[in-house]
Order: sequence, then structure tokens, then C-alpha cells
Amino acid sequence: MATYSNPVLHGYFRSSCSWRVRIGNFKIPLNLLYSLKLTQEYKTLNPMQQVPAVEIDGITLSQSLAVIQYINETRPGPRLLPADPKKRAQVRMISDLIASGIQPLQNLYVIQKVGAEKMQWSHHFIDRGFQALEPILKQTAGKYCVGDEISMADICLVPQVYNAERFKVDVGQYPTIKRLNQALLEIEAFKVSHPSCQPDTPDDLRA
Amino acid sequence: MATYSNPVLHGYFRSSCSWRVRIGNFKIPLNLLYSLKLTQEYKTLNPMQQVPAVEIDGITLSQSLAVIQYINETRPGPRLLPADPKKRAQVRMISDLIASGIQPLQNLYVIQKVGAEKMQWSHHFIDRGFQALEPILKQTAGKYCVGDEISMADICLVPQVYNAERFKVDVGQYPTIKRLNQALLEIEAFKVSHPSCQPDTPDDLRA
Repeated sequence: MATYSNPVLHGYFRSSCSWRVRIGNFKIPLNLLYSLKLTQEYKTLNPMQQVPAVEIDGITLSQSLAVIQYINETRPGPRLLPADPKKRAQVRMISDLIASGIQPLQNLYVIQKVGAEKMQWSHHFIDRGFQALEPILKQTAGKYCVGDEISMADICLVPQVYNAERFKVDVGQYPTIKRLNQALLEIEAFKVSHPSCQPDTPDDLRA
Repeated sequence: MATYSNPVLHGYFRSSCSWRVRIGNFKIPLNLLYSLKLTQEYKTLNPMQQVPAVEIDGITLSQSLAVIQYINETRPGPRLLPADPKKRAQVRMISDLIASGIQPLQNLYVIQKVGAEKMQWSHHFIDRGFQALEPILKQTAGKYCVGDEISMADICLVPQVYNAERFKVDVGQYPTIKRLNQALLEIEAFKVSHPSCQPDTPDDLRA
């Protein structure tokens, strides 16, 4: 495979982790395969059998933040991690608070195991996470999550707010989260990557 | 607060995320406060009310991988992320597979909510994660998780295997994971940071 070829994204319109990759990788074209089906072929590609997985430069990467940082480090375009080490650490902290502290608990394969109480379960853990995220963002945010530059933290925030709304969390309780989400949704990279307008979005969920 | 002062780690002997920080930060002294108690004071420090949290250089960082990378980027010492972008991406992928895909599901506050079935629940998700991790490590590993240098991925692996054993996962089913864990446990930084020999380890759990 050629070095620095166009990557292939295996994603799903409503997967928040797939959406992160769609936002974060606006600098390069991505082919969307939407191979959510749990085929043996996909299991070989991503043994975790989740989306996203990205085939890029001869390797396969799962885990959205690893993909975003790899593309950010190997392609020209806007920097998604600040040059200042403290700000960079805050971006990673906020990203991981969402990616490790909130999202995994409302992941499809987890709430399937939770069963009948899945709505209440997801609501509980997203709400708990936002209670922690709000005071942190209040300290770090400028126009965006950390200062005035868009970063990986913003890429994690917007899909998480979308999930919060799906699980009936009252985002109005979190004024900083609400403000940042609204500002970010005005930006082209967040708009074109939105779950409501992907090739695999069902007609009744289209914006 | 002075720049580059000694950081303060708020941790807990058996917290796998605290252990990550203890391993990863062997290059600098860390004060261990073990403030697990969910006081209002700690909630102000870390609104997520989890360990670890680290006070460092005038900021507070929660999320173990953000802490490890910050210290790695600001202090001299062994490099915990490879210089090669592809290897670095693989280190992040493996770290996040554990930190987002496995550990959150057996976190204390989650299994408390699961209740009576917590042993079976944790066993299920760790086993599922190791089924994915084993073929990935088979491809990336040399002496350690990615090639022959110790990285952040190794720092995530060892505490996760410790947790797997607590939840009765048969690690012998995963020969690569087992081999890497055994090799890493021979290394001083992993030994001295082990949950069996921390200041807050109860006597009956001491090695």
C-alpha cells in the first residue's frame, strides 16, 4: 500500500466515535464504508468489532483518538492539539474524560447487556460525566473547550452532547457545555460530519 | 506555585488508573496522598471524583493518560511514546483499547451500579477486551507491547491484567498478553508501583 494514501474509514452514521473521526479528519478525504455488520472480515480488521476503524498508510487503526492524532501528526492542516504542554494536557484530559469516562458506558454493546434499563443507565452516566465536565470546561474554555482554538476536546464534546440529547439529558443544566456545543455546531467540519447527513443515515433521521 | 515542582498524586493502591500513573512517572518523585474519600475538597480538585488526580505545575490533571503524556513531554527521562508516527499510533490504540474499551466497564462506580452481578459483568467485559487485544498485540509486540521499547501501552496493560486476575479471567488463554505481562513485571518501575506494596495497601493484601 502506498505511503500516505487516502484512508478508508469504516464507520456508522450514529456512532459518536465515528463522528469524532469524521470531524477530526476534515483535512483529508475519507472513504466511508459503513461496515458495521459484524462479519469475520471486519473482525480481522478490528478484533474489537466496533467502529470506527481506519485503514491508513498500510496499517489499521481502531480507537478514534489514536486515529485523529495520527492523521494530525502526519498530514498538514489545522493543529488539533495545542503547542503549549499544559493546554495540550487539558485537551487530552477533557478528551479522555469523555472517551473513557462517559462514552464507553453508553456504547451499543454495553447498553445491550444492560437491557431494559438502558435509557436510565445511559442517562445516569452521561449526566454524572457532564456534572464533572462542566466545572472543568468553565476553567479551561475560551471560545472553544480549551482556549480559542478548536482541538480534539471539541471533537469529543459535540458527539457526546448529541448522545446526551438522545438519552434525554437536559443539556441546559450545563451552560458551558451548551454554549460550546452551539458554537461548534456552526462550524463547517462539524456540520458536514453530523449524523443527520451521512450516506448511511436513514431517511427518517435526516435533517 | 513553582513551575515544574514535584507533582502530588492522589491515588489508591488498587486503582488500575492510579497504578498507570505510578509506573509512568517513575522519572519524577510523586507524593501519594490517597485521598480516595469523596470529600468536597477532592471534588473541587477532580469533579469526576475518581483517582488519580495529579497537582502539577500549577494545574490539576485527572485522566491517567493525560498525566503520563504531560510528564513525559515536560520532563527528561525514557520516552513513553515512540518517535515513529505509526508505532506511536499503535501505542495510543492499545492504550485506548484498554483505557476506553475495557477499564471503564469494571470501574468501581460502574460495578457498584451493576450490583450483585458485578463479578460476572466485569469478567465478561475484560474477557471480551482481551479477545480483541490478543491478536492486535500478536502483530505489534516485540519484547513489549509495541516493538522492543517500553511504552504507554505497557503501562496500561499490566494494571489491566492485574484487574483481570481479580475478576477471575483466565489470562492463560491469551499467550501474548501473558508473556508481555510477565516480562514487564520483572522491571523495577512496575515492581515498585505494584498495588501489593503501596503505603495504603492493607496488611492482608501485601506481598
